[in-house]
Amino acid sequence: MSNRPKITYTFTDEAPALATYSLLPIVKAFSASAGIDVETRDISLSGRILAAFADKLDADKRIEDDLAYLATLATSPEANIIKLPNISASVPQLKGAIAELQALGYSVPNFPEDPQSDEENEIRARYAKVLGSAVNPVLREGNSDRRAPAAVKAYARKHPHSMGKWSMASRSHADYMRGGDFFSSEQSITMDKAGEVRIEFVGKDGQVELKKKLALQEGEVLDSMFMSCNKLRAFFEQTLQDCKETGVMWSLHVKATMMKVSHPIVFGHAVSVYYKDVFDKYGELFKELGVNPNNGISSVYDKIKTLPASQQEEILHDIHEVYSHRPEMAMVDSVKGITNLHIPSDVIVDASMPAMIRNSGQMWGKDGKQKDTKAVMPESTYARIYQEMINFCKTNGAFDPTTMGTVPNVGLMAQKAEEYGSHDKTFEMTADGTMRVVAADGTVLMQHEVEAGDIWRACQTKDAPIRDWVKLAVTRARLSNTPAIFWLDPERAHDRELRKKVELYLQDHDLTGLDISIKGYNEAIRTSMERQMRGLDTISVTGNVLRDYLTDLFPIMELGTSAKMLSIVPLMAGGGMYETGAGGSAPKHVQQLVEENYLRWDSLGEFLALAVSLEETGIKTGNAKAKLLGKTLDEATGKLLDNNKSPSRKVGEIDNRGSHFYLALYWAQALAAQDEDAELKAHFAPVAKALTEREATIVAELNSVQGKPAEIGGYYRSNPELTSKVMRPSATFNAVIDGLVA
Amino acid sequence: MSNRPKITYTFTDEAPALATYSLLPIVKAFSASAGIDVETRDISLSGRILAAFADKLDADKRIEDDLAYLATLATSPEANIIKLPNISASVPQLKGAIAELQALGYSVPNFPEDPQSDEENEIRARYAKVLGSAVNPVLREGNSDRRAPAAVKAYARKHPHSMGKWSMASRSHADYMRGGDFFSSEQSITMDKAGEVRIEFVGKDGQVELKKKLALQEGEVLDSMFMSCNKLRAFFEQTLQDCKETGVMWSLHVKATMMKVSHPIVFGHAVSVYYKDVFDKYGELFKELGVNPNNGISSVYDKIKTLPASQQEEILHDIHEVYSHRPEMAMVDSVKGITNLHIPSDVIVDASMPAMIRNSGQMWGKDGKQKDTKAVMPESTYARIYQEMINFCKTNGAFDPTTMGTVPNVGLMAQKAEEYGSHDKTFEMTADGTMRVVAADGTVLMQHEVEAGDIWRACQTKDAPIRDWVKLAVTRARLSNTPAIFWLDPERAHDRELRKKVELYLQDHDLTGLDISIKGYNEAIRTSMERQMRGLDTISVTGNVLRDYLTDLFPIMELGTSAKMLSIVPLMAGGGMYETGAGGSAPKHVQQLVEENYLRWDSLGEFLALAVSLEETGIKTGNAKAKLLGKTLDEATGKLLDNNKSPSRKVGEIDNRGSHFYLALYWAQALAAQDEDAELKAHFAPVAKALTEREATIVAELNSVQGKPAEIGGYYRSNPELTSKVMRPSATFNAVIDGLVA
Repeated sequence: MSNRPKITYTFTDEAPALATYSLLPIVKAFSASAGIDVETRDISLSGRILAAFADKLDADKRIEDDLAYLATLATSPEANIIKLPNISASVPQLKGAIAELQALGYSVPNFPEDPQSDEENEIRARYAKVLGSAVNPVLREGNSDRRAPAAVKAYARKHPHSMGKWSMASRSHADYMRGGDFFSSEQSITMDKAGEVRIEFVGKDGQVELKKKLALQEGEVLDSMFMSCNKLRAFFEQTLQDCKETGVMWSLHVKATMMKVSHPIVFGHAVSVYYKDVFDKYGELFKELGVNPNNGISSVYDKIKTLPASQQEEILHDIHEVYSHRPEMAMVDSVKGITNLHIPSDVIVDASMPAMIRNSGQMWGKDGKQKDTKAVMPESTYARIYQEMINFCKTNGAFDPTTMGTVPNVGLMAQKAEEYGSHDKTFEMTADGTMRVVAADGTVLMQHEVEAGDIWRACQTKDAPIRDWVKLAVTRARLSNTPAIFWLDPERAHDRELRKKVELYLQDHDLTGLDISIKGYNEAIRTSMERQMRGLDTISVTGNVLRDYLTDLFPIMELGTSAKMLSIVPLMAGGGMYETGAGGSAPKHVQQLVEENYLRWDSLGEFLALAVSLEETGIKTGNAKAKLLGKTLDEATGKLLDNNKSPSRKVGEIDNRGSHFYLALYWAQALAAQDEDAELKAHFAPVAKALTEREATIVAELNSVQGKPAEIGGYYRSNPELTSKVMRPSATFNAVIDGLVA
Repeated sequence: MSNRPKITYTFTDEAPALATYSLLPIVKAFSASAGIDVETRDISLSGRILAAFADKLDADKRIEDDLAYLATLATSPEANIIKLPNISASVPQLKGAIAELQALGYSVPNFPEDPQSDEENEIRARYAKVLGSAVNPVLREGNSDRRAPAAVKAYARKHPHSMGKWSMASRSHADYMRGGDFFSSEQSITMDKAGEVRIEFVGKDGQVELKKKLALQEGEVLDSMFMSCNKLRAFFEQTLQDCKETGVMWSLHVKATMMKVSHPIVFGHAVSVYYKDVFDKYGELFKELGVNPNNGISSVYDKIKTLPASQQEEILHDIHEVYSHRPEMAMVDSVKGITNLHIPSDVIVDASMPAMIRNSGQMWGKDGKQKDTKAVMPESTYARIYQEMINFCKTNGAFDPTTMGTVPNVGLMAQKAEEYGSHDKTFEMTADGTMRVVAADGTVLMQHEVEAGDIWRACQTKDAPIRDWVKLAVTRARLSNTPAIFWLDPERAHDRELRKKVELYLQDHDLTGLDISIKGYNEAIRTSMERQMRGLDTISVTGNVLRDYLTDLFPIMELGTSAKMLSIVPLMAGGGMYETGAGGSAPKHVQQLVEENYLRWDSLGEFLALAVSLEETGIKTGNAKAKLLGKTLDEATGKLLDNNKSPSRKVGEIDNRGSHFYLALYWAQALAAQDEDAELKAHFAPVAKALTEREATIVAELNSVQGKPAEIGGYYRSNPELTSKVMRPSATFNAVIDGLVA
């Protein structure tokens, strides 16, 4: 490695990879002026396949295992990684990539769907490491720092998104269990030394069943809790009766994607309580057919298709009968008649609640009209924050994006902080008895009396990530000169354990002049909102679930979307990773480029990540030029937003490449205009001049290629020369940029 | 004076005075056992008249000026005064008392209605000092300490009053101005040395008009603020439109009795905005007739009586037309058709809001049904606490009197702490211009740009009472081992001045182990309610207005009434005054005694006050017996409540006298049962035995006299022998009590 500071830019897949061909030359050219190298590392699906089978390839076709390199880098202090979205490959995608590589002359083996030999098994095992979410678990060696970048916040202040008006007479509210849920049963311990514990179920007959063994580290926090099935069902029934009485619309909000085991069960109970008459009447039949309410009422529609038409009709009739005596239910799609209980992944609390709150506290009824709603969120642990925000909006009106402060988040995430119940430690009880956590010496550490149907779960949180999280909170408070609130609820067992650690680890830091406090959830969100209403910022320092919830909730109020947030993972070893593109890698964008030579991908996330990456480089290496590059890049991004130079989405107007030109133009102008660094000023003044003068020419060159097919020579591994040519169609622009590094 | 500790029991008027004839012998007999003297001081109306004209009376008819004595006593550390309610005399009452005294042979002069001579003027001047509220201003030389006595709280926990259920879908709320009100314009200064200031109005022409001169003390806080007439009227219109849209009922909540100048004007604007069509149409006519909207819509009904019937009908028709396009208004009396805007004193915020909150957040519509309501309280300073409580009840349901904690109050009251705008410093502007407060040297200390119709006011708060209030808060926190919250709003100018003093004066005290904090109103009430819901107590330490509001709000939730609260005025000089009987002196009770020999007066307030008085005596003089008397008296009161031995209100059952017997019985039993003091145990064991054995006899003797007229020889100055005979009709009971002191 050279001693020059280095930014590692990931080369990934599809639209972000295409955009990289245009953006990276600009980034490299500008960064060079501060003596910064920008290296690329290939973590594309095709790259990872080639790395996995390097031994099978011709020598000239072999590539380095860049993911392995990045994994090592992530645990070293000099890591400065810009992580673009990549493909989490399904089997069909994998097979498509293999076929393409083989056609390109790479001798990678076929994917053995049904391996028969040792060799095939070995191949299959190598491919297994490439499938699915193979990158994030390797790289996310840190906690989460998410915030609205200054440029984005400024843009929202000038061009506010719409916010539905709130009435003080609104009937909307969030309803949650007042006992019998995970919150009320939570227990938590901290291991005073490393050791193994057993999760056991003791039946009424005294039989002990080992459910799971866990090896815990010293200082690790282990929680256990359960949700009572009977109380959950009684709660659902009560909320339905209440809606029936008050005329308020009923809706369910869970997070079946994150709480992968517990929440589908919770969702299933909602379905079978709401449609109780149907499930009572057809209980046996549904069992035979394999109807699973955890998959939503759509499961009934799917499974009854095998029945005679008359029987199907009878069941459908009975389902429709249910609506006559149940309260109106919120619709996901009122045109298609898809309700809140259709499938478990349609209403995801962290997205659906902010949407409801932005929409005057209302959701959509079956008549397509928006109505006051009871948002049912059984688990009271987090539901209370939504009720607090609803009360706040009733009292103070909708938030005002033009004046409101921001609430960035520092979230405990590293090393799989499992606050939300890890999937392998969540159990649906099949009998009455006792669930307990037992130490190696037989000591019972925690236990709960449970009944059949109850959902019991445990969560692990390691000590080192907590210590790092506290440090990150202090750092953010210091750097942004912003008060920070640790959201730790005095009534929650887990949070009481964490509080002890937080108070201890805060002592490691100089807190002079900082405003750091610890508050329960209601007080924390209320304080943050009161300040926000007055234009003041407050850092939320939270566990993993609230990280997930709040990084949608506040951004959606402040910016209208969470996609524009800066997502930083300060790595525990000291490096940094800057994640971009909440929208995924966008296969449809590639198709449009190939057909029309138009790339609608918005590189805003990359601009923002790069600015922070440069700033961090500057801070860590004492490189003032790097800091200045970051600062001016942010100015350029702000100007780009202001002047509406993001991809227009219309062929013939500026696309991804045009937005990169404007970024370069504004960035150069900002560097030429500043007076902090004379060298950079002198360096970029002619660039700014050239780009300014040639704006019309360059834009014409960039836009004139559109409307015709483009040839890039591949989907999973496009040809670099062809792709570069397509992505850099303006000779005038290229000349200026390439001249910078020459 | 003797060196024995002494309790001063006030002899007052009407029912409380009659009850004293029965209760005092018991009190004296029990107190004697701890070496405590109980003296009575006559502050009855007749007594005050006689004292005022002592020089005109025969030597044998002269009495001491007990009010003057008490005024001196109140400023001395040994004061221990039990203050019963007395007559605040109107002129007719005064004349009645004079006539009665003259008939009894007291040569007091007639009241000169229209004094013609110097002598008559002098007489008139003496009577002036007897008229109206002549006692409280003399005696209230301290701040306010109000709390629910343990016995009363225990009773409410066992026998909870009804509480209306709250729905999460309730539309009720409190609405208030978001600018243009007193809160948003408040300015406040602290005098660094004593000096005179001038309140001036500067017209648009530069003319300066002196409105008022004030002599301020060193350290005195002076506030000034105004309410914009235009913004107030626009606010009313907006609330009406909002109710029209949402269908929520409209109601107005002000405190025209306390804010005697400002709130009637605010009320008047509500009337003339609601009935705008009528006031617009008949503006000139109403002016001629002297209609004043500040007196309510009833003013229209009153004043148009002089008009021809046809014109009256037209106006009434137009008034009824208003209801067709205005939202429904809350009724004070739906049977009589009396609305919220009828007269200004019908809906008093401190009583009406707790009633609404206890009643599921609803008020009564014109159809006699209860409905969700917009409670309109223009002045946002205090209105916000009601919205906070409403949101709290929506989220958590109605308070539960069987489990909820208590929120006692320490209120800044001494030396007329004028937070609510003193009447002589409130002005309704008649022209546009500047209101300003100017120091003697010409420095402008505060100023506001005002318009005609705006309401400007100033308030004074002296320093010594603030220092005493802080001390009282610390004392109460220490003695009751309860967290105390100073309600001082960071966004209020007055409170920021007070906060400086509070932080300074807290340093005078040992706060070790105490939990004393300062919070804004919303946070203060929220914290108190969160604790209360969990059964925890929190002292509210507030200014004068919140003292007034909270000592209704919390007691009504906790006890169903504020009448059962203990009201203590710890005098600044070190003594204590214990006020009883929020219900007044009750003339109708006297009438019933004379006609049926039944006194329905409930001496609960006296029992409670006496217990604290004894406890305080014990603490201040190190008299353990006195403390024990107080403690056992509280136990007795609790038992009396539990066993339902308060006056039954039915002739033939126990009345005031019977309840005194049971108090004596339970008190003696408690003293006989305790083991802290052997001497008292021995002393009261035979008393307990005698009273227990003779219960049936005594109750029979007490009740048998009822149903026939009773002769007490006077109303304002009844004959002591006759009255004592009437009030002590049980020879058996008297023998036991009198035997105690013998």
